[in-house]
Amino acid sequence: MSLDETLARIDADLPEATERLLNLLRIPSISTDPAYKEHCQEAADWLVEDLKSLGVQAEKRPTPGHPMVVGHVEGDGPHVLFYGHYDVQPVDPLELWNSEPFDAKIEDTPEGKVIRARGASDDKGQLMTFVEACRAWKAVHGTMPCKITFFFEGEEESGSPSLIPFLKENAEELKADLALICDTGLFESKTPAIMTMLRGLLGEEITLTGASKDLHSGMYGGAAMNPIRALTKVLANLHDDQGRVQVPGFYDGVPEMPDEILKQWEGMGFDHGKFLGDVGLSKPAGEQDRTALEMIWSRPTCEINGIIGGYTGEGFKTVLPSKARAKVSFRLVGQQDPHKIRESFRAWVKEQLPEDVDVEFHGHGNSPASQMSTDHPAFEQARRALSEEWTNDAALTGCGGSIPIAGYFKTYLGMDTLLTGWGKDDDAIHSPNEKYDVESFHKGIRSWARILDAITK
Amino acid sequence: MSLDETLARIDADLPEATERLLNLLRIPSISTDPAYKEHCQEAADWLVEDLKSLGVQAEKRPTPGHPMVVGHVEGDGPHVLFYGHYDVQPVDPLELWNSEPFDAKIEDTPEGKVIRARGASDDKGQLMTFVEACRAWKAVHGTMPCKITFFFEGEEESGSPSLIPFLKENAEELKADLALICDTGLFESKTPAIMTMLRGLLGEEITLTGASKDLHSGMYGGAAMNPIRALTKVLANLHDDQGRVQVPGFYDGVPEMPDEILKQWEGMGFDHGKFLGDVGLSKPAGEQDRTALEMIWSRPTCEINGIIGGYTGEGFKTVLPSKARAKVSFRLVGQQDPHKIRESFRAWVKEQLPEDVDVEFHGHGNSPASQMSTDHPAFEQARRALSEEWTNDAALTGCGGSIPIAGYFKTYLGMDTLLTGWGKDDDAIHSPNEKYDVESFHKGIRSWARILDAITK
Repeated sequence: MSLDETLARIDADLPEATERLLNLLRIPSISTDPAYKEHCQEAADWLVEDLKSLGVQAEKRPTPGHPMVVGHVEGDGPHVLFYGHYDVQPVDPLELWNSEPFDAKIEDTPEGKVIRARGASDDKGQLMTFVEACRAWKAVHGTMPCKITFFFEGEEESGSPSLIPFLKENAEELKADLALICDTGLFESKTPAIMTMLRGLLGEEITLTGASKDLHSGMYGGAAMNPIRALTKVLANLHDDQGRVQVPGFYDGVPEMPDEILKQWEGMGFDHGKFLGDVGLSKPAGEQDRTALEMIWSRPTCEINGIIGGYTGEGFKTVLPSKARAKVSFRLVGQQDPHKIRESFRAWVKEQLPEDVDVEFHGHGNSPASQMSTDHPAFEQARRALSEEWTNDAALTGCGGSIPIAGYFKTYLGMDTLLTGWGKDDDAIHSPNEKYDVESFHKGIRSWARILDAITK
Repeated sequence: MSLDETLARIDADLPEATERLLNLLRIPSISTDPAYKEHCQEAADWLVEDLKSLGVQAEKRPTPGHPMVVGHVEGDGPHVLFYGHYDVQPVDPLELWNSEPFDAKIEDTPEGKVIRARGASDDKGQLMTFVEACRAWKAVHGTMPCKITFFFEGEEESGSPSLIPFLKENAEELKADLALICDTGLFESKTPAIMTMLRGLLGEEITLTGASKDLHSGMYGGAAMNPIRALTKVLANLHDDQGRVQVPGFYDGVPEMPDEILKQWEGMGFDHGKFLGDVGLSKPAGEQDRTALEMIWSRPTCEINGIIGGYTGEGFKTVLPSKARAKVSFRLVGQQDPHKIRESFRAWVKEQLPEDVDVEFHGHGNSPASQMSTDHPAFEQARRALSEEWTNDAALTGCGGSIPIAGYFKTYLGMDTLLTGWGKDDDAIHSPNEKYDVESFHKGIRSWARILDAITK
């Protein structure tokens, strides 16, 4: 049987494949909010049933958090493990959505048809491109292209607390020759990318407490310590006026990119102006001696992802709050050590606090950066296969996001990982009105068929 | 008829008076939140009916916001206007209340009986001490002690937007020889106070916008401007490391207190350690060359009353928010001009914003400080009357809070105002678990009977 027949089958089955994805998107599997626990179970059940329909021996596997879905199917050639995640981000601010986040549907837009829903791009739509490629292959060939292990997680958007214990406990079962992950984007709409450098992530939540209760600023204002004031003083010191992070030792283990890689990046035609202009910005806000591409691919960063304290409703309330809180994250590169940075950050915060302010820290996951070893032949085979499907040749790139699973696969299962995906910069993942282009979904399925064909020849 | 008979009547009627107050407290008249509009009407209606039961010609008077309650009753001697407010603060954070904020009730505590409810101390309990004093007087004498105008506002906790227009339109009707206000506290539990210096208040809300939508920090982190970062940088600059406010021109018009007043304050035995210690603090947080009493009575301040941006729910979300917002207030003294400070603050904020950050300002009321002219004989008469009721002699003091109405009475009606009240530092006004001591309520009613007796002799 030829690859062309599989591609033709994919084209013909697109309406049904889209319908299946819409059904999965209608399950509100928000992993970070305990209120959606049952829906995470529901999404896992849905995937188990869908894999079974492909002849995969699939089951839901319990964890202390949301379940994993694991499926195995036999085949000739190399053994690959495919990873994706079925959980999604929260939907707030809900008022900025133009439609219900879980009322998934196809929309016509000036740029083409899109699938609109929370999780459409991150990661249910991407995950299903691989499943649909396998479905088409099976329909045409009667067998799978190779031995495949399916591994779907339900806690990717909430720090993956159960992942490492699960990998350790099931290492023998999960280990394959190569891992495939579909949770990243196109370099630009006509150019696919295989990500070979991923930033790590460290999350910290700080809660400052001043007085033992909220106070009236008329009675105490001026005399009583205001923890919001203390918090803004600390957070304002995170970056100097050149955009460098001020936590001591933060840049230990940060490598300088070789000139040849920087030159290669320059040659990729990344449009810095458009990248920021598309979201209403004009100037790269990070380290002032770096390009925007370095800022998001090869430089570490620190961001304040959330802050709250005092009265934040309508109108005004002259309160001196007892508590103020912030969520801070660090994107890590090279050999930066998340544990050392966490310790250094906590000590640095404590040093700066005035009298009468207590601090509590709460860690939200940590993962070092990862660097793929691209000498595995599948990388070049996949790059050529992708170049066939898309207008422009595929590129080997960095990635600003953190997909710690790739590092864990290397550490705990000794597997290399090939990361690719069909998301676009305007997919609004983690934002209101998330979407996935029908073209991304369609060409994504075709891309996986091509990759599976290339690496199993 | 003697004062003693009135006081005896007050003592005998205390259980019924308390029951009436509990009924008023059960109406959730939160003025700043539009969801409670009908309850503000309900509280105004309740007061109209209660005044009518005293023979007062009372009515609800519409405004563009919540209604005023105005009542008149004839009598001999001077004409006094009594002002109080029937609206209350919001109740959040609700989870810190040990009982329902509007399920008003009497509680036994180790320190004595308290009336527990939002508004118990600020200002429904205080307002009713005057009404109950009039009720007892009427019961004993058959008449009121003098000609009285009752004037109750429903927007005091939300910036009093209708107040000045109402005062201007009804100046002839409202003007009296002296205004009485019960919205302040005891100097300490055995020492009553007449406040002669009140701070002004200026409220500002700042909204910063970076990107046109929320972004994923994996994709944009480092390169895109984060408005929380910009906001913390600006707010951290509000105070220098000596606690001085850095807005240009802020201290223009701030007088130094005469040495004799500072000495008088020193002699009042204010326990700085206990004042802060009672709320879990140890060190005055304002200007480092001032005492805590100066910080709250005679020095201007700036406080961040609320801040919000990004993801603030459970767990973690690596979002780069589009917007971040803060509410900032300034307490003013002497001749500080709220309009000039507002302009200077806005210009100062704008100057500090980096590229790609837009700002919107929203003003929340402004009032200058006020200084009472204490040469009106009622001040000394009232001071002596209060000294009879309480263990220690009454003091003439400053007040950290802003009761702009006293300044407006002077400006628009040419009236002096005598401000006194029976609240305590631990009443938790504007905070969870607000209370009013039954002793404050009881002795407060008796205090008003004594004051009315003294100023009408």
